[in-house]
Amino acid sequence: MDSITLIAIVSIITAGLTISIGVIAPALGEGRAVSTALSSLAQQPDAATTITRTLFVGLAIIESTAIYCFVVSMILIFANPFWNYAITGAAGK
Amino acid sequence: MDSITLIAIVSIITAGLTISIGVIAPALGEGRAVSTALSSLAQQPDAATTITRTLFVGLAIIESTAIYCFVVSMILIFANPFWNYAITGAAGK
Amino acid sequence: MDSITLIAIVSIITAGLTISIGVIAPALGEGRAVSTALSSLAQQPDAATTITRTLFVGLAIIESTAIYCFVVSMILIFANPFWNYAITGAAGK
Amino acid sequence: MDSITLIAIVSIITAGLTISIGVIAPALGEGRAVSTALSSLAQQPDAATTITRTLFVGLAIIESTAIYCFVVSMILIFANPFWNYAITGAAGK
Amino acid sequence: MDSITLIAIVSIITAGLTISIGVIAPALGEGRAVSTALSSLAQQPDAATTITRTLFVGLAIIESTAIYCFVVSMILIFANPFWNYAITGAAGK
Amino acid sequence: MDSITLIAIVSIITAGLTISIGVIAPALGEGRAVSTALSSLAQQPDAATTITRTLFVGLAIIESTAIYCFVVSMILIFANPFWNYAITGAAGK
Amino acid sequence: MDSITLIAIVSIITAGLTISIGVIAPALGEGRAVSTALSSLAQQPDAATTITRTLFVGLAIIESTAIYCFVVSMILIFANPFWNYAITGAAGK
Amino acid sequence: MDSITLIAIVSIITAGLTISIGVIAPALGEGRAVSTALSSLAQQPDAATTITRTLFVGLAIIESTAIYCFVVSMILIFANPFWNYAITGAAGK
Amino acid sequence: MDSITLIAIVSIITAGLTISIGVIAPALGEGRAVSTALSSLAQQPDAATTITRTLFVGLAIIESTAIYCFVVSMILIFANPFWNYAITGAAGK
Amino acid sequence: MDSITLIAIVSIITAGLTISIGVIAPALGEGRAVSTALSSLAQQPDAATTITRTLFVGLAIIESTAIYCFVVSMILIFANPFWNYAITGAAGK
Amino acid sequence: MDSITLIAIVSIITAGLTISIGVIAPALGEGRAVSTALSSLAQQPDAATTITRTLFVGLAIIESTAIYCFVVSMILIFANPFWNYAITGAAGK
Amino acid sequence: MDSITLIAIVSIITAGLTISIGVIAPALGEGRAVSTALSSLAQQPDAATTITRTLFVGLAIIESTAIYCFVVSMILIFANPFWNYAITGAAGK
Amino acid sequence: MDSITLIAIVSIITAGLTISIGVIAPALGEGRAVSTALSSLAQQPDAATTITRTLFVGLAIIESTAIYCFVVSMILIFANPFWNYAITGAAGK
Amino acid sequence: MDSITLIAIVSIITAGLTISIGVIAPALGEGRAVSTALSSLAQQPDAATTITRTLFVGLAIIESTAIYCFVVSMILIFANPFWNYAITGAAGK
Repeated sequence: MDSITLIAIVSIITAGLTISIGVIAPALGEGRAVSTALSSLAQQPDAATTITRTLFVGLAIIESTAIYCFVVSMILIFANPFWNYAITGAAGK
Repeated sequence: MDSITLIAIVSIITAGLTISIGVIAPALGEGRAVSTALSSLAQQPDAATTITRTLFVGLAIIESTAIYCFVVSMILIFANPFWNYAITGAAGK
Repeated sequence: MDSITLIAIVSIITAGLTISIGVIAPALGEGRAVSTALSSLAQQPDAATTITRTLFVGLAIIESTAIYCFVVSMILIFANPFWNYAITGAAGK
Repeated sequence: MDSITLIAIVSIITAGLTISIGVIAPALGEGRAVSTALSSLAQQPDAATTITRTLFVGLAIIESTAIYCFVVSMILIFANPFWNYAITGAAGK
Repeated sequence: MDSITLIAIVSIITAGLTISIGVIAPALGEGRAVSTALSSLAQQPDAATTITRTLFVGLAIIESTAIYCFVVSMILIFANPFWNYAITGAAGK
Repeated sequence: MDSITLIAIVSIITAGLTISIGVIAPALGEGRAVSTALSSLAQQPDAATTITRTLFVGLAIIESTAIYCFVVSMILIFANPFWNYAITGAAGK
Repeated sequence: MDSITLIAIVSIITAGLTISIGVIAPALGEGRAVSTALSSLAQQPDAATTITRTLFVGLAIIESTAIYCFVVSMILIFANPFWNYAITGAAGK
Repeated sequence: MDSITLIAIVSIITAGLTISIGVIAPALGEGRAVSTALSSLAQQPDAATTITRTLFVGLAIIESTAIYCFVVSMILIFANPFWNYAITGAAGK
Repeated sequence: MDSITLIAIVSIITAGLTISIGVIAPALGEGRAVSTALSSLAQQPDAATTITRTLFVGLAIIESTAIYCFVVSMILIFANPFWNYAITGAAGK
Repeated sequence: MDSITLIAIVSIITAGLTISIGVIAPALGEGRAVSTALSSLAQQPDAATTITRTLFVGLAIIESTAIYCFVVSMILIFANPFWNYAITGAAGK
Repeated sequence: MDSITLIAIVSIITAGLTISIGVIAPALGEGRAVSTALSSLAQQPDAATTITRTLFVGLAIIESTAIYCFVVSMILIFANPFWNYAITGAAGK
Repeated sequence: MDSITLIAIVSIITAGLTISIGVIAPALGEGRAVSTALSSLAQQPDAATTITRTLFVGLAIIESTAIYCFVVSMILIFANPFWNYAITGAAGK
Repeated sequence: MDSITLIAIVSIITAGLTISIGVIAPALGEGRAVSTALSSLAQQPDAATTITRTLFVGLAIIESTAIYCFVVSMILIFANPFWNYAITGAAGK
Repeated sequence: MDSITLIAIVSIITAGLTISIGVIAPALGEGRAVSTALSSLAQQPDAATTITRTLFVGLAIIESTAIYCFVVSMILIFANPFWNYAITGAAGK
C-alpha cells in the first residue's frame, strides 16, 4: 500500500463517517423542535407567528451543526490538502 | 491487494454504512414529528392548515440531513474522485 | 484472495448490513406514527380524514429513507460498478 | 481458503444477520402499533372499523421493511449473483 | 481447516445467532401487545371480542417475523445449499 | 485443531449462547405480561376469567419463541447434522 | 493445545456464561411480576387469592426459561456428548 | 502453556464472571420487589401479612436464580470434572 | 510466562473484577430499597416499625448477593485451589 | 508508511471524528432549548421578548462548544503544526 | 517481561479498575437515597428523626459494598500474596 | 516510525478526542439549564432578573468544564512539552 | 521495553482512568442530591436547616467514594510500591 | 520505540482522556443542579437567598470532582514523576 492509496482510503472512510455520524444529533434535535412546535401550535394557535419564526431560527442554528459536518466531508472528498500534497508529490516524480 | 481493489472495497463499505447509519436519526425524527402532528390534529382540528404546513416544512428540513448522506453515498459509488484517479492511473500504465 | 473474491465478499456483507441496519429507524418511526394515529383516531373520530391523510403522507416520507437503503443494497448486489470493473478486467485477461 | 468457500461463508453469515437484525425494529414497531390499537379499541369501541383498518394498513407498511430484509436474505442464499459467478468459474476450469 | 469444516462451523454459529437474536424483538413486541390487551380488557370488558380478535391477528403478524428467522435458521441447518455444494464436491473427489 | 474438535467447540458455544440469549426477550416479555395481568386483576376482579385466559394464550405464544431457541440448542447438542457428517467421516477412515 | 483440553475449556466457559447470562432476564421479569403483585395486593386486598395464584403460575413459566439455561449448563458440565466422544477416543488410543 | 494451566485459568475466570454477572439481575429484581413492598406497606398497612408473605416467596424464587450461578461457580472451583480429569491424567504419567 | 505467573495474574484480575462488577447491582438495588423506604416513612409514619423491619430483611437478602461475590473474590486471593496445586507442584520440583 | 503519510492519515481521521462527535451534544442541547422555548411561548405569549432573548443567548453559549470542535477540526486540516513540521523537514532534505 | 513485572502490572491495573468501577453503583445508590431523604424531609418534617436514622443505616449498608472494593484494591497494592510469593522467589535466587 | 512522528500522531488524536468528547456533557448540561430557564420564565415572568442571573452564573460554571478540555487540547497542539523535548532532541543531533 | 518503562506506563494509564471513571458516579449522585435539595427547599422553606444539614452529610458520604479513587490514583503516581521496587532494583544493578 | 517516547505517548493520551472523560459527570450533574435551581426559583421566589447559596455550595462540591481530574491531567503533562525519572536517566547517559 503506497501513501496515495492509504490517504484515499482514509479520506473515503472519514468522509462517510463524518456525515453519517454528524447528522444523527441534528436530525433528532430538529425532530424534537418540530414536534414541540406542532403541539404548541395546537395548544396556542394565536401565537402561530411567533412560534413559527422562533422555530425556523432554531432549526437554522441546529442545521448549522449538520452543515459543519457536511463541509468537512466535502473538503475531505473534493479539497483535501493532504491528498493534493500527495498527488502533487506523485506527479512530480 | 492492489490499490484499486482496496479503494473499491472501502468505497463499497463506506457507501453502505453512510446511508444506513445516516437514515437512523432522520427516520426517528420524522417519526416523532409526524406522530406529534397527528396528536395535535386530534387535539385542535381547526388549526389543521397551520399544523400540516409547519409539518411539511419541518419534514423537508429533517429529510435534508438524510439527503446529505444519500448524496455522499452516491458520490462514493458513482463519482468517486479517488477511484477515478486510481483507474486513470491503472489505465495509463 | 484475489480482487474479485474480495469485492464480492465486501459487496455481500455491505448489502446485507445496509438494509438490515437501514430499516431499524424507519420501522420504529413508522410504528410510532401509526401508533399515534390510532390513539388520535380514538380520541377524535371526526378528524379521521385529515388524520389518515397526514399519516399516509408521513409514512411515505419515512418509508423513503428505508428505500434509500434498499436502493443502495440492490445497487451493490445487481449493479455494482466496482464489481463490473473487476470482472471486466478479469474477462479481458 | 479458496474463493468459493469464502463467498459461501460470507453469504451464510450475512443472510443470517440480515434477517435477524432486520426483524428487530419491525417487530418492535408492530408491537407498539398493535398495543396502541388495543388501548384505542378499549377507549373508543365505536371507532373499531376505522382503527382496525388503519392498523392493518400500518402493519403492512411496517412489515414491508421486514420483507426487504427477508428478500435480501433469500437472494443471498438462493440467487446470489456473486456465488453464481464463482461456481460458474469453478465449473469452467 | 478445509472448506467443509469451515462451512459447517459458520452454518452452526449463524443458525444459532439468527434464531436467538431474531426472537428478541418479536418476544418483546408480543409481550407489549399481550400486556396492553390485558389492561384494555380490564378497562373495557364489553369489547372483549374485538380486543382478543385484534390481539390474535396482531400476534400472528409479529410472530411472522420470528418465523422468518426460524425458517432461515432451519434452512442453514438442514437445507443449506452451500453445504450441499461442498459435500457434493467432496463426495465427487 | 482437527475438524471434529472445531465443530464440537463451535457447537458447544453456539448451543449455550443460543439458549442464554434466546431467553432474554421471552422472559422479559412474559414478566411484562404477567405484571399487567396482575394489575388488571386488581383493577377489574370481575373480568378474571377473560384476563387469565388471554394471559395464558399470550404466554404460550411468547414462550414459543423461547422454545424455538431451545429446540435449536438441543439440535446442536444431540442431533447436529454437521457433527454426524464429521464423525461418520472420521469413523470411515 | 490438544482437542480434549480445548473442549474442556470451551465447555467451562460456555457453561458459566449460559447460566449467568441466562438468569438476567428471568430475574428481572420475576422482579417485575412480584413487584406488581405486591402493589396489586395493596390496591385490592380482596382479590388476594386470584392474584397470588396467577403470580405463581406466571413465576413458574418465567422460571422455566431460567431452567432451560440451567439444564444446558449442567449438560455441558456433566453430560457433554462432545466431551464423552473425545475422552472415549483418547482412552481408546 | 500446558493443559492443566489452561483449564485452571479458564476455571478461575469463568467462576468469577459467572457469579459477578449472575447476581446483577437478581439483585436488581429483589431491589425492585422490596421497594414495591415498602410502598405497598405504606399504602395499605392492613395487608401487611399478605404482602410480606408474598414478598418472601417472591424473593426466594428470585434468589434461586442467583443460587444457580453460585452453584455453577462453586462447581467450577471445587468440583470441576474437567480439572479432575486433567490432574488425574497428569498424576498418572 | 510460566504457569504460576499466569495463574497468579488471572487470579488477581478475576478477583478484582468479580467484586467490582458484583457490587453494582446490589448497591443499586439497596439504593432503591432505602429510597422507597424513606418516601414510605414520610407518607405513612405510623407504619414505621413494619417498614424498617421489612427494609432490613430485604437489605440482608440483597446484600447476600454482594457477599457471594466477595466470598468468591476472597477464595481466589487467599484460598485458591488452582494456585495451591501449582505452587505445590513448583515446590516439589 | 513514511511519517508524512501517517500524520496526514491521522489528521484526516481526527478532523472528521472531532467535528462529527463534537456536534452530537450541541445539536441535542439546542434541540432541547428550542423545543422548550416553543412550548414556553405557547404557554406565556406575553413573555415572548424575554424568552427569545434568553433563548438566543443560551443557543450562542451552546453553539460555542460546537465551534470549539470546528476550530480544532479546521486547525488539524489547514494549520496543523505537526504537518507543517513534517513537510518542512521533507522539503529540507 | 519477567513474572515480577507482569504481576506488578496486573496488580496496578486491577487495583485501579476495582475501585473506580466499584464506586459507581454505591455512589449512584447513595445519591438516590440522599435525594429521596431530602424530598421526604420536605414532605414530612415531623418524621425527621426516623428518616435520618433510616437514611444513615441505609447509607452504611450501601457504603459497605464500596468498602469491599476498596479493601480488595488495597490488598492488591499493599498485601498481595501473589506479589509476595514472586518477590520471595526472586530474592531467594 | 520514529519518535517524533509517533508523538505527533498521538498528540493529534488526543487533541481531537479530548475536545470532542469533552464538549458532550457541557453542551447537554447547558441545554438542560437553558431549557429549564425558559420554562421557568414562562411560569414566573416576575422573577426574570433572578432567573437569568442564576442561569448565567450556572452556564459559566458548566462552560468552565468545557474550557478545561479546550485548554488541554490547545496545550497538546501548540505547547506540548513532550513534543518540544522531542524536536529539541532531533534538532540537537 | 524494559520492566521500569512498562510499570511506568501502566501506572500512568491506571492513575488517569481510576480518577476519571471514579468521579462519574459521585458527580452524578451529588448532582441528584443537590438538585433534590433545591426543590425541597422551594417546597418547604421552613425545613431549611434540616435539609441543608442532611444534604451536607450526604454529600460528604458520596464524596468519600470519589476520594477513594483519588487516593488510589495518587498512590499510583507518588507512592507506588511496585515502582519503588523496580527502581530500587534498577539502582542496585 | 524507546522508553522516553512510550512514556510521552502514554502521558499525552492519558492526560487527554482523563480530563475529557472526567468532565462528563460533573457537567451533567451541574446542569441538573442549575436546572432545578431555576425551576425552584420560579416556584418559590421568596427563598431565592437560601436556594442560590445552597446551589453555589453544591456546585463547588461537584466542580471539585472535575478539578481532581484536571489536577491529575496537569500532573501528567507538567509534573510527571515517571517522565522526570526517564529523562533524568536519558540525560545521565
